[in-house]
Amino acid sequence: MSSAAHVGVVGGGQLAQMLTQAASPLGVAVTVLDPDPCCPATRAGAGCVVGHPSHFDDLVTLAAQVDVVTFDHERVPIEHVRALEARGVVVAPGAAAAELAFDKIAARRRLAELGFPVPDFVEADGPAGIVELGTRTGWPVMAKAAHGGYDGRGVEVVLAAAAAPDAARRLGPRVLVEEHVAFDCELAVVVVRRRSGELAVYPPLLTVQRDGMCVEVSHPAPVSGAVARAATELAEALATRIDLVGVMAVELFVVGDEVLVNELATRPHNSGHPTIEAFATSQFEQHLRAVLDWPLGSTRSRAGATVMRNVVGSTGGPDPVTRLRAALGVPGTHVHLYGKEPRPGRKLGHVTALAETVDDARRAACAVVEQLVPVAALEVSA
Amino acid sequence: MSSAAHVGVVGGGQLAQMLTQAASPLGVAVTVLDPDPCCPATRAGAGCVVGHPSHFDDLVTLAAQVDVVTFDHERVPIEHVRALEARGVVVAPGAAAAELAFDKIAARRRLAELGFPVPDFVEADGPAGIVELGTRTGWPVMAKAAHGGYDGRGVEVVLAAAAAPDAARRLGPRVLVEEHVAFDCELAVVVVRRRSGELAVYPPLLTVQRDGMCVEVSHPAPVSGAVARAATELAEALATRIDLVGVMAVELFVVGDEVLVNELATRPHNSGHPTIEAFATSQFEQHLRAVLDWPLGSTRSRAGATVMRNVVGSTGGPDPVTRLRAALGVPGTHVHLYGKEPRPGRKLGHVTALAETVDDARRAACAVVEQLVPVAALEVSA
Repeated sequence: MSSAAHVGVVGGGQLAQMLTQAASPLGVAVTVLDPDPCCPATRAGAGCVVGHPSHFDDLVTLAAQVDVVTFDHERVPIEHVRALEARGVVVAPGAAAAELAFDKIAARRRLAELGFPVPDFVEADGPAGIVELGTRTGWPVMAKAAHGGYDGRGVEVVLAAAAAPDAARRLGPRVLVEEHVAFDCELAVVVVRRRSGELAVYPPLLTVQRDGMCVEVSHPAPVSGAVARAATELAEALATRIDLVGVMAVELFVVGDEVLVNELATRPHNSGHPTIEAFATSQFEQHLRAVLDWPLGSTRSRAGATVMRNVVGSTGGPDPVTRLRAALGVPGTHVHLYGKEPRPGRKLGHVTALAETVDDARRAACAVVEQLVPVAALEVSA
Repeated sequence: MSSAAHVGVVGGGQLAQMLTQAASPLGVAVTVLDPDPCCPATRAGAGCVVGHPSHFDDLVTLAAQVDVVTFDHERVPIEHVRALEARGVVVAPGAAAAELAFDKIAARRRLAELGFPVPDFVEADGPAGIVELGTRTGWPVMAKAAHGGYDGRGVEVVLAAAAAPDAARRLGPRVLVEEHVAFDCELAVVVVRRRSGELAVYPPLLTVQRDGMCVEVSHPAPVSGAVARAATELAEALATRIDLVGVMAVELFVVGDEVLVNELATRPHNSGHPTIEAFATSQFEQHLRAVLDWPLGSTRSRAGATVMRNVVGSTGGPDPVTRLRAALGVPGTHVHLYGKEPRPGRKLGHVTALAETVDDARRAACAVVEQLVPVAALEVSA
C-alpha cells in the first residue's frame, strides 16, 4: 500500500473523520496530528501523530509521512504553515489562502482590497474601535476575536458604547468590529479548486445560525437566480484570486439583490455536510481530490430538496449513540454521529434528510434529531 | 464510547471493509476476526482479533467483545456457528440460515423441501452422481464443491461423462451436481430482514458472470414486471422461511417467465455494491441495521440507471491505486479500491456509474475500469 496517496490532516475532529470516511473507498490513507490518539478521525481508520499544531516539530513529523498537509481546524499558527511551505512541504490550502480563514482581520482586509463586497468594519485593539464603528453605523455592532472563534465562541454582539469595554476585554487584543447587517438570509457557497486550477462549485445553500452556531442548512435556497449566480460567481472568483487549493465555504449575507462576504473557511465546513448524500460528490471527497490535484467530481444535486440539522449535546441529555434504534425509523434520513463525548453545546453529529420539498425534509430531519437528543433534555438545558 | 453498538465480523476482507465504512458515520464499532492484522477492514477503522475462523477459541474471543457476530465470508465451520449460538452468542444470520450459504448441498436440499424452484440436481460423492445427472438432463452439467468455492473456484462445467472422474477428483468428496440451465438472464435480489421480522427488498439487479466471477451488475434489469415481482417475492418468502437476519443475495436464473434459485449468500454480496450510491440505503448499512435489530432503511432507487463493474487484477497490470488521477476524470462514477495486494484474477475494487440509461452508465463504468486496470494489461494476461 506504499503506492497509495497519503493525506495529512492537522486536527482529528469530525471534519477529519468525515475526510477519512471519504478517503477509505478510494484507498487513500489519512494521518492526523492530534493530541488525542483516540480522536474521531482515528475511529474511521486514520493514523495519528500524537502532538499539537502549535509545536512545529509535530507538524514536521506529520509532513514527513504524507504527500500533502491540510487542515481540520484553524487553530494553527500561520507562521508554522509558512515555515512548512518554506521547507518544501506541500500544504493545501497554502499559507496565503489559509490565513484568510485563520485570521478574521487579515481576511476582511484582503477581501476589501480585492474589491469583494464586505460589511463595513474596523480593526480594534480596545473599546475605542468598537465605539468608532458603532458611532458610524449605529448599534449594535458585531465584535469578533481575530483568532480561534468557532460555533459562536469569540463573537460578541455589542449593543451600545457602554458595553464596549467589557466586550473588548473578553475578546483580547485583536478584534474585528463590523456593522450589524440586517440581512434577508444567509447563504453558504462551497467551492473547490485543485492546484492546477480546475474549479467546481455547489449551488448556494441556505444557512440558519443561532448564537453563532449553524442550526440548519437547506437546499434549494429560496433566492432569485440573480442572487444565486452572484453568490456562486463571487465564490469562484475569490477561490481563483486567493489561489485556493481544496474546499472553501464562503458564508454570505443576502441583502436585497446584493451579497456580502461574512466569513470564510478554507476547508470542508459544517454548512457543506448535505453534500455527502444530496450531491453527486461530497465536499470531503472533493477536498481530497483537490489537495491531491486529482480531477474534481460533479457538484450536481441528487435530491429535490435536502435539510441538514446538527445534533448538539445538552445538559443531562442522552448520548445519541444510545438512541439510534429510535432515530433510524424515519425514512429518507441519514444519521452521522462523531463518537464524541457528549457535552452541552457540543456538536455530536448531524442528520441529513432528502425529500421532494424543503418542508418535508425539515420535518424528517427534525424528527430524527428529536429522537437522538430529545427536546425535553434541550429545554432543561435552556 | 462503551455505549455504542459493536458488531463482530468473521473475516476482514472487502465486504467487512465496506461494512466498517457504513458503520463509521453511525458511530457503530466493528471488530473483525482475521489472520491478517492489516486486513482491508482494519484500514477503514475496524478493530481486529488476529485469529482464524476454524479455531473456535478465536471466534469466542471475538464474540466476547461485541454485541452480535456476523460474516464476511463462508469459510467458517458451521458447527462452530452452532456452538456459538449454544453459548448464547447472538449470531446473525443464525446457523440454520447461514448453512444455506455455507453449504451448497444443504441449501439446495432445503430450498427444494420448502418448495422453491431450483434447477434439477443430485448430490454426488464421486463421478457416478455426475454421470447420473448428465444422463438424465443432458450434458453439460455443473458440478460444484459443497464448500468454499467463490469467484468461479470450486465450480466445474462437465461436458461429458468421460470428464466426470477428473472433475470429481478436483472437487472433493461432497459435490452438488446440477443441470446446465439455458437461462435468458441472471438476476440478483438483495433482501434484508431484521431479527424482529421487518423485511426490505431492493429491485432485482441484472448480473452477468464470466468464468464464475461477477462481471457486471446493472439496474434497472430488463425483465417484465411479472418476472421482477416473482423474483422479489421469492426472495422475501425465502428470507422469512429461513428466519434470515441480515442481508441475503439471492442469485436467480430467469427462463421465460420463470425464476429458479441458483445460489444464496447470507451476507452483503458483490451484486449488491450498486446499492452504495444508487439506492437510498446501502446493503452494508442495511446489514448493520438488521443484525442490530434496528429499523431498516429505504431501498428506493436514487438513479435512472446504474452499472457496477469489478476492478480485477491482471498479470503485469498496475496497482489501481496508482491510477486514480487518470480514473477520476469520468463524471458520474464512484471508485472503490479495497487496498488489496494486486494479483491476477483478484477483485481489487469496483466502480459504480450512475446515468440516465444503462448504456451510458456502462460506458462510464468501463471507461473508469480501463483507466484503473488498462485493457492492454488484461489482454496480456488472457
